[in-house]
Amino acid sequence: ISQFEHGVSSADKGEFKHYMLKETYEQPEVIKACLEGRVSDDKLLEQCFGVKAGEIFDQVKQVQIIACGTSFHAGLIAKYWIEDLVGIPCMVEVASEYRYRPVVIPEGTLFLTISQSGETADTLAALREVQSRVLASLVICNVPGSTLVRESDLALMTNAGPEIGVASTKAFTTQLVALMLTTLALGRRNGLTAERESAIIAALKKLPQQVLHALEMDSDIEKMAQSFAEKQHSLFLGRGTLYPVAKEGALKLKEISYIHAESYPAGELKHGPLALVDKEMPVVAVAPQNDMLDKLKANLQEVRARGGELFVFAGSDKVQSEEGIYVLNMPECEEIMQPVLYTIPLQLLSYHVAILKGTDVDQPRNLAKSVTVE
Amino acid sequence: ISQFEHGVSSADKGEFKHYMLKETYEQPEVIKACLEGRVSDDKLLEQCFGVKAGEIFDQVKQVQIIACGTSFHAGLIAKYWIEDLVGIPCMVEVASEYRYRPVVIPEGTLFLTISQSGETADTLAALREVQSRVLASLVICNVPGSTLVRESDLALMTNAGPEIGVASTKAFTTQLVALMLTTLALGRRNGLTAERESAIIAALKKLPQQVLHALEMDSDIEKMAQSFAEKQHSLFLGRGTLYPVAKEGALKLKEISYIHAESYPAGELKHGPLALVDKEMPVVAVAPQNDMLDKLKANLQEVRARGGELFVFAGSDKVQSEEGIYVLNMPECEEIMQPVLYTIPLQLLSYHVAILKGTDVDQPRNLAKSVTVE
Repeated sequence: ISQFEHGVSSADKGEFKHYMLKETYEQPEVIKACLEGRVSDDKLLEQCFGVKAGEIFDQVKQVQIIACGTSFHAGLIAKYWIEDLVGIPCMVEVASEYRYRPVVIPEGTLFLTISQSGETADTLAALREVQSRVLASLVICNVPGSTLVRESDLALMTNAGPEIGVASTKAFTTQLVALMLTTLALGRRNGLTAERESAIIAALKKLPQQVLHALEMDSDIEKMAQSFAEKQHSLFLGRGTLYPVAKEGALKLKEISYIHAESYPAGELKHGPLALVDKEMPVVAVAPQNDMLDKLKANLQEVRARGGELFVFAGSDKVQSEEGIYVLNMPECEEIMQPVLYTIPLQLLSYHVAILKGTDVDQPRNLAKSVTVE
Repeated sequence: ISQFEHGVSSADKGEFKHYMLKETYEQPEVIKACLEGRVSDDKLLEQCFGVKAGEIFDQVKQVQIIACGTSFHAGLIAKYWIEDLVGIPCMVEVASEYRYRPVVIPEGTLFLTISQSGETADTLAALREVQSRVLASLVICNVPGSTLVRESDLALMTNAGPEIGVASTKAFTTQLVALMLTTLALGRRNGLTAERESAIIAALKKLPQQVLHALEMDSDIEKMAQSFAEKQHSLFLGRGTLYPVAKEGALKLKEISYIHAESYPAGELKHGPLALVDKEMPVVAVAPQNDMLDKLKANLQEVRARGGELFVFAGSDKVQSEEGIYVLNMPECEEIMQPVLYTIPLQLLSYHVAILKGTDVDQPRNLAKSVTVE
């Protein structure tokens, strides 16, 4: 496909109208680049983390993840992965909170920072604050030679190429791939079988093709965007690893289309936010599981009767559209990698809404690409 | 003052127009009731947690807090307290997420649930899920004999009396008092000195009087409410223990006035939500520390130039109002107990905005008092 011929590291827009759209479409390619040299046919090649990696990973008893913004959302997904596949505790916190409070650092803590630029002020300050008290530090980063990379014990580069659009897209999905590789490195020391590792490697290798399929939803998403362009509000719901995906989807819409989109774990809906929902607030659910969808439908029944709309991203053929409920079928994908795949249409949604609203997609008001001051 | 003469357990509105307002004004009294018999002149009387409490607390190595909605916000504050004063890890998670994922439960985990009703479906399901794998369970609850109280190893009742208004007020602040008592019980086993314990007990005992002073802000808050009643959006910012207070303030406004209020840790503002802020989105900052306020002012400079308004709740005399920045001075209070005090004006704000908008304060649309189904 022609849009990929400019190569990963290209910093011009090519035939795309905006950097953000170009970067969204680069994702199949950069996910492949992120896997390149890091996995064999069926195994993680863990030397990609650095020469001391093996020795350090042997001693890890828990993981503390620190990040900001979009990178924080990647960290939230990694918590689910690490606690599920590694079985050791994983804590995630925004850097600006962590650095200013008296924190507890148990023995054997791997301090994992995530930052596209490697220069995020609060994340860097947090690292410097605890560097001497942790087992070791690892950064997942997109900029070689950046301060976080230089000051961390271990680094895994996301290899996404330059990201120019202020709203992060390909940096996020490659962070997720890098975090899954980290999960495998820790998992193989904590009971994750070679079979499971091999299956996950296979799932990772299928991702570029699956992301390409997800990008084919573009014209459906463009239509869907019309239901949002005139609205001032939106609610994004998810569960499990897809709750942070909902958070990231809401953040994208906030950042570039200035729609007040907020995310909640689906189960919290009845504990407050449901009061807000009316026909002026479309609800987006990232919901591959039928059981969650049934509960959501029950919760939203009253709202739907008053004209409230629900948009559901779901596994194909599992859910049918009906009055007030619009189902968007996702390409098939291994359950463990769903967070990467379900992110794609939400990126496209924010883009198309911004286009309809005529906002400055690549340079949204009030925001800078890297937050290098507090 | 006449509004207190009906007594804690009264379930009629007395001279108040709404249960929520009555319950807001009962807080000095119920905080006192929550301390009654639980503290001596200078010490926590830890048998209030149950006969086995001492033996259990001796073995606690970390705390896992599980709750929903407003109770979840109380748990977020307790995390800061426990990691600061006890120095052991404390994890907090919404019940609907925790119950559905494969969780890690380290040895020596105290499983602490928080629920006004003691019947919250997801919280109860989470307890039943892990009951056999934790060191012990403790519930902070307002309803004696409720299911969570019956099924937990230890219980500390909040003694707030019946709460009728759907939007929780007095249940939340008494939960905070109960959580501080829990912090003391764990702290005295982990290096918290008798002097510090005694100082915190003294701070707790001053709370009813300080809350009474905070309630005297009522007419100022009523005026402030006019800046919100015509708005569809609001952003609540806080840092440290006051970030969850900002979350709770935003939830109150959502629940009863249907204004889309969202909260963020102040440091995350530049990582996305700042794009949303314009003159249609007043910003509320819960900011006793000057340093955070200076950063906020810098961040919001552009927004203020375009007519954006900032409302700051701050320690008295420390901050001055200026063009576009309205400072509301809080009564003096020990720093550790600020979350209780700063909650009060935010409760009043949501109430007065709801009154101006004419919504049903005690029975907001779509919500039930206790969420006993998923």
